[in-house]
Amino acid sequence: MVRRTGRRPGNPDTREAILSAARTAFAEKGFDGASIRAIATGAGVDPALVHHYFGTKDKLFLASMNSPIDPIDLITEVTAGDRDEIGVRFVRAFLNMWDGPRGAAAVALLRSVVGTEWTAKLFREFILTQILRRAVPKLGLDAAEAHLRITLAASHLVGLALARYVIKVEPLASAPTDTLVAAIGPTVQRYLTEELPGVFPA
Amino acid sequence: MVRRTGRRPGNPDTREAILSAARTAFAEKGFDGASIRAIATGAGVDPALVHHYFGTKDKLFLASMNSPIDPIDLITEVTAGDRDEIGVRFVRAFLNMWDGPRGAAAVALLRSVVGTEWTAKLFREFILTQILRRAVPKLGLDAAEAHLRITLAASHLVGLALARYVIKVEPLASAPTDTLVAAIGPTVQRYLTEELPGVFPA
Repeated sequence: MVRRTGRRPGNPDTREAILSAARTAFAEKGFDGASIRAIATGAGVDPALVHHYFGTKDKLFLASMNSPIDPIDLITEVTAGDRDEIGVRFVRAFLNMWDGPRGAAAVALLRSVVGTEWTAKLFREFILTQILRRAVPKLGLDAAEAHLRITLAASHLVGLALARYVIKVEPLASAPTDTLVAAIGPTVQRYLTEELPGVFPA
Repeated sequence: MVRRTGRRPGNPDTREAILSAARTAFAEKGFDGASIRAIATGAGVDPALVHHYFGTKDKLFLASMNSPIDPIDLITEVTAGDRDEIGVRFVRAFLNMWDGPRGAAAVALLRSVVGTEWTAKLFREFILTQILRRAVPKLGLDAAEAHLRITLAASHLVGLALARYVIKVEPLASAPTDTLVAAIGPTVQRYLTEELPGVFPA
């Protein structure tokens, strides 16, 4: 699933060895605990080569998960603009990703996350370090509420993706994007920015 | 996964042969197209034995999917009582099922549905024939809107189950039931019974 482009030099075997070592390290030690140095040692290469191939640790992590997107791009797109419209922008950007050329990779990722415990563990790290840690500052939420608010919204969206793109339940699977944005956008808006009576301790 | 109790007579191999033939028939022909007679023939037994072991075709279908519950029980529980509280009852009953002794079977079912196309196909039949067909009359919804309303609610709940019980994302995984009922109940209520501007054609 890793795309190789003209801009990425090097031996495919070396790249794959680094990705394999990275998967093991991230699954065993978590994102913060896994060092580029240890991953390089695991792959039998120099740490400089890891940086050369993959750039930052974030980028290496996303590549090791075969992530179809860098969530920071989605977060940046969604948080730019009117705060009262963040819900509808979020749902629209999410659906556009799944309906676009990267949708097949997203289905593959979702299947693998559900299928095995170690990919589930990687995905927890993904949500924590690539989504929550990067989204909270941009969303301007109360720190005590932010993680529950974002995971409520994310759980709805991942369920929508599961129903629409993996299980393909009708009429969800064929519903126009605008219909789903109108239905689900207000829910995501409520989870992210509105009062949620009974949810947070007073 | 199939529970055998003192009330269920017969040879385990025969039961398994019937379930195996049922899975194939339901996946290939759908719930309505698969006949008890053809399933019995596939298993090399008399149709009366299929009825004797499993009762109705609905029950045989649920057994063939290793369904942890009969959705009609959940639907009956949720639709009894005040219509304005249906959302919170739905979320509470759903979480209680996953947190109860049948939760492990529910996780296994969700994993298998995501893992393979033929279980996804079976699950589509499950949603159509065991949930939608049975829930719509009890919910008293407009027939033109009912399927989208119910699948919107169901997609949220399946996403919640995925995040909380399979991927185990915090803080969702450890959130008290009451917190999630307070957060998600109003969403399910809105999807099922409230106005959804922009969702249904005028």
